[in-house]
Amino acid sequence: MATTKKTPPSRPWRSTAELPLRPAVPWQSASDTVAGRIPLALPRPSVPDPGFRPTAFVGEAVPFRVTAFREGHDLIGVHLRLFAPNGEESLHRLSPLNDGFDRWSVLVSPTAQGVWRFRFEAFGDDFATWEHAADLKIAAGVDAELMRESGALLFQRAAAERSRPAAERRRLEAAAARLRDPSLSDSAALEIVRDPEIAALFAARPLQSLLTVGPTHELLVERERAGVGAWYEFFPRSEGAVRRADGTVQSGTFRTAAERLPAVAAMGFDVLYLPPIHPIGETNRKGRNNTLDPQPGDPGSPWAIGSAAGGHDAVHPDLGTIEDFRAFVKAAAGHGLEVAIDLALQAAPDHPWVTEHPEWFTTLPDGSIAYAENPPKKYQDIYPVNFDNDPEGIRAEVLRIVRHWIAQGVKIFRVDNPHTKPLQFWEWLIATVNDEDPDVVFLAEAFTRPAPMQRLAIAGFQQSYSYFTWRNTKAELEEFLGSVSDETADFMRPNLFVNTPDILTEYLQYGGRPAYRVRAAIAATAGASYGVYAGYELYENVARPGSEENIDNEKYEYKLRDWAAAEASGDSLAPFLTRLNEIRRAHPALRQLRNLRIHWSDDDAILVYSKHLPAALSPDGVADTIIVVANVDPHSARQTMVHLDTAQWGVEPGEAFDVVDLVSGAEWTWTDHNFVRLDAFHEPAHILHVKERR
Amino acid sequence: MATTKKTPPSRPWRSTAELPLRPAVPWQSASDTVAGRIPLALPRPSVPDPGFRPTAFVGEAVPFRVTAFREGHDLIGVHLRLFAPNGEESLHRLSPLNDGFDRWSVLVSPTAQGVWRFRFEAFGDDFATWEHAADLKIAAGVDAELMRESGALLFQRAAAERSRPAAERRRLEAAAARLRDPSLSDSAALEIVRDPEIAALFAARPLQSLLTVGPTHELLVERERAGVGAWYEFFPRSEGAVRRADGTVQSGTFRTAAERLPAVAAMGFDVLYLPPIHPIGETNRKGRNNTLDPQPGDPGSPWAIGSAAGGHDAVHPDLGTIEDFRAFVKAAAGHGLEVAIDLALQAAPDHPWVTEHPEWFTTLPDGSIAYAENPPKKYQDIYPVNFDNDPEGIRAEVLRIVRHWIAQGVKIFRVDNPHTKPLQFWEWLIATVNDEDPDVVFLAEAFTRPAPMQRLAIAGFQQSYSYFTWRNTKAELEEFLGSVSDETADFMRPNLFVNTPDILTEYLQYGGRPAYRVRAAIAATAGASYGVYAGYELYENVARPGSEENIDNEKYEYKLRDWAAAEASGDSLAPFLTRLNEIRRAHPALRQLRNLRIHWSDDDAILVYSKHLPAALSPDGVADTIIVVANVDPHSARQTMVHLDTAQWGVEPGEAFDVVDLVSGAEWTWTDHNFVRLDAFHEPAHILHVKERR
Repeated sequence: MATTKKTPPSRPWRSTAELPLRPAVPWQSASDTVAGRIPLALPRPSVPDPGFRPTAFVGEAVPFRVTAFREGHDLIGVHLRLFAPNGEESLHRLSPLNDGFDRWSVLVSPTAQGVWRFRFEAFGDDFATWEHAADLKIAAGVDAELMRESGALLFQRAAAERSRPAAERRRLEAAAARLRDPSLSDSAALEIVRDPEIAALFAARPLQSLLTVGPTHELLVERERAGVGAWYEFFPRSEGAVRRADGTVQSGTFRTAAERLPAVAAMGFDVLYLPPIHPIGETNRKGRNNTLDPQPGDPGSPWAIGSAAGGHDAVHPDLGTIEDFRAFVKAAAGHGLEVAIDLALQAAPDHPWVTEHPEWFTTLPDGSIAYAENPPKKYQDIYPVNFDNDPEGIRAEVLRIVRHWIAQGVKIFRVDNPHTKPLQFWEWLIATVNDEDPDVVFLAEAFTRPAPMQRLAIAGFQQSYSYFTWRNTKAELEEFLGSVSDETADFMRPNLFVNTPDILTEYLQYGGRPAYRVRAAIAATAGASYGVYAGYELYENVARPGSEENIDNEKYEYKLRDWAAAEASGDSLAPFLTRLNEIRRAHPALRQLRNLRIHWSDDDAILVYSKHLPAALSPDGVADTIIVVANVDPHSARQTMVHLDTAQWGVEPGEAFDVVDLVSGAEWTWTDHNFVRLDAFHEPAHILHVKERR
Repeated sequence: MATTKKTPPSRPWRSTAELPLRPAVPWQSASDTVAGRIPLALPRPSVPDPGFRPTAFVGEAVPFRVTAFREGHDLIGVHLRLFAPNGEESLHRLSPLNDGFDRWSVLVSPTAQGVWRFRFEAFGDDFATWEHAADLKIAAGVDAELMRESGALLFQRAAAERSRPAAERRRLEAAAARLRDPSLSDSAALEIVRDPEIAALFAARPLQSLLTVGPTHELLVERERAGVGAWYEFFPRSEGAVRRADGTVQSGTFRTAAERLPAVAAMGFDVLYLPPIHPIGETNRKGRNNTLDPQPGDPGSPWAIGSAAGGHDAVHPDLGTIEDFRAFVKAAAGHGLEVAIDLALQAAPDHPWVTEHPEWFTTLPDGSIAYAENPPKKYQDIYPVNFDNDPEGIRAEVLRIVRHWIAQGVKIFRVDNPHTKPLQFWEWLIATVNDEDPDVVFLAEAFTRPAPMQRLAIAGFQQSYSYFTWRNTKAELEEFLGSVSDETADFMRPNLFVNTPDILTEYLQYGGRPAYRVRAAIAATAGASYGVYAGYELYENVARPGSEENIDNEKYEYKLRDWAAAEASGDSLAPFLTRLNEIRRAHPALRQLRNLRIHWSDDDAILVYSKHLPAALSPDGVADTIIVVANVDPHSARQTMVHLDTAQWGVEPGEAFDVVDLVSGAEWTWTDHNFVRLDAFHEPAHILHVKERR
């Protein structure tokens, strides 16, 4: 129906169905009703709260969808009218999803940052209605003369539209005359009805009636890194730390940690996230394995922020100076790595805030400051901030801190436990910071219930940790991936971290190396953003008994790892992570989330999904399709049939197509039903690229 | 937690958790954010379109729900503030659903018609937070003194609130003093923490902090019949029709049809719906069984409206005069029956509109008026109205017609095929008519796709036909009943007709008498509104071959039925329908929809659901609980275990309770797991009343 058109690169969008721009001339509709002449409802992208706007990232293939229908049998058309932040306007034709729910959809990719506006326009598609009726009726010998005359009138009406190119208008006049020519047989007239060129001409500039213009919505488009990236987390104090002869450890520094940058970059990561780099409290410091009796030399948890050496605007003296930090950020950038730091709004008892601003904490009736607690448990190394005693003061201070780090070259903040602070504080902070610099990205460590997790995203967080780590079976992953790629994708972007210093799931504890491999493969291909915390490459899978985190946790001590030895002996996952990140860089379909589709297998542990990016939306103009087949049972070899909805990438059911496994290099010819065997101990997942047919 | 209070009958609501009224004193919150200090989201009742308002009916038990949460561990409370149409204000406490999604809920029943306003208020519940911490910490010997002093301060703060009764304030002062009394042991102090009377006092007037007031929403409350009723449909021309000696039939009239009123009333129906009563077109009249060659004496379809005898404002001369109609309506009212008529906006070629207002139709290029069609099929007995040539003219005419029938005593209109007319027309018509008379009810015959069906309800239709007739298996019914009683219940009220002149499903065609019996039992108990088209009692189950409607369809001919003979021989379902309607009248829980809950059985044809109405919301102040267990396989006897979530009606798992089968009179003692055997040929359903314990 619609014409696909290569957009000149200067225009800030890519579209699967762009049309020549024409002004909308709304039908003189009754103005005393909420419903328009042709009802338009449930627009997407949208947010389940009228006060907020949906988001997308630069280059994201966004499905614009709406419910539209009209009474009776006449056919309708639906357009999307899009206004770029610079005011540039474009028109795109939606296609019916034919799902029984009157949904219409078009994929458009905004390629400029800023606030976009969009609206839907629905209209009676007079040509399509006539074409449908004329085709059936002339063929059936019913009302042929009437249908031909109706068509002639319709072609003439179109020919009278001044916005049509002159050649088109002449062609329509000629077709009208032929339809009226009594010497032309009905079967010849039917050829005009079915003429694909005339249909294309009406698809590009439909003959509209009852044009109904829906309300205008907004879409906030953020930079690509807000939605896409491979993250790596390390503790700078561990990188280059050295064990002294007496058994104590000399802390790594920004300078020694910088020596690890080439390796991280070589693995293909985009973002390097550092746990808090600030001075660590001495009072009530935690010892190894979260004990209450630290030994001399125990470095304490970096999240117990603040000491005589300073607070949130300072760097830990052991790591170096602020200049060292700036140099580290610069060195990382030189390796193509962007540094993210931690924003943990809490204080160790030694934090300068405690004496300078006791009003930023909760004072108890006995005059003491309240520790963090979950009654009857207390966390005596941390004072939580009270955001309500002096809201303006706290706001000013946090803004000062964030600006301070932005001035040091940081544009990404991983926010610790945002759900333990007021939602409205985050809404204000992120809006204020993004007003000054729209490139700043905040990642919410919102490991909490669905409602606060989603509301933090709606309030402005560009990314969110997700339940991915706890979704390990096929059924769990299908539900999770289906949900994050569709239901919540208009406002929440999950970052699929495979592990964190806080989370070592039972699946990883007991799944062996196959578990590490398959989880990385799924995270890297299913998530537009995913992350790995250092040590994952070494299969560090021993938990502190009774806990869901690593034993000898890096939060409380230095970790001295021998990366090179592990790689040399073949005991490192780094080569596989490197390959995954190469695949992500080579395949734009993987740098999307909303394009994820679940497919089927007959085995309850073989997960199947695909990601497709149409040529029109691809940065290089080439369609890209990836199929992932993963055995999520790390203890087995499994074989099964895999069933694909190949129409997702334009292949008819039963038609053959060629795939290449981007990990093993194996090639197969596949159809919509295929046999697979996946041995978790050998290679638990296929990552298949669908080759374009020549 | 909350206090349940009997509301004086003069106040237009009933509540499960009403609180003493207090003004809201909002916390001085940041005004530059959309999120409030304590986030409130996804309020219900609500409509998925910001321009429309949700609806309820007088006496409906409405769950008011909202998502509310706060950061950290402190506890919150949530109130509903309700403003009746007369401005009267009330306050109700929500309970957490504890479903993991931070949903809160309270059941309130508005008992006055009109536009209600409501809003949610969330607050830090300082007493609950302290009680939780003090209970755990004093018992654990942690910070006992601090917790006692915190409590004393909190009690004193409450005692200082002038809105509290003086006795309560004195009591709180005394409790504060005791908490501070060093001679009181910690275990004695713990008794104060756990004192249920103090807890009740704080539940009624919580000590609030950070009070956040959500936006105000509207709820349109319509009369009870908008949501509740047992409908019966008959063709007045068949009632009292007489076959003459020559085989032709003399039409029934309003007078002869009135003779059938006592029987319909005796069956316990509330509404009597009449297909169109207007003159029927002669041109292209349909013959028996939808044939195109009517025989002399064939009366034609009542939906082919209009002849020389008049149009939509006239009555068919065969039925009598407008005075006869008024008398019929009056007689029906005398029997407790409200008459509904049909509003079918289409015209036979003989309709006066055709000559007087050809602009209300579509004129083709050859000068003829367009028949209704679904290309290449044509329906030559009907001209569809064109609503766009003269929108104002059509609006005025339809409003005139509706007002005309309202003037004859009609307040219920069953609207034929509303989805073939513009949605915006219905929105305008219903709003305009209800503005003049809020008691007028429109039932949409919206047998169409989900989107237009739901949008018609949202646009104003008080009721809608539904997919019930096509939902026959247990799985289908569970999905259907679950959906209509919750997801769409804020804006769409299904009327569960078991059959219509247009629909005789295969289930009824081939299910025999058990099918008729079980479908009636489900419709009458699951639906707050349900309906029966005459002939259902006689198990009329023969379809016109290849169609889904009765053979010798009453739409095209008179039906002469011998009701008395069928009852005398035991071949009538009328006694069962009578019993079903008796049960509906005796049990207010059945005159609700949103209270339907699906339970479980181990058999794939045994459907189980319950309806519960708490005492506080019941018109007579007595709780009412019904459990329905139905065998939906009409060809079998089945036995299975039935599993009940008895907490729905306040019975603990494992606890015994007594039930009586309202059809058979049998009594049993049940628990949450029970054996049932249902023989479809004998009695396919249990309708069980849960007896209140003495």
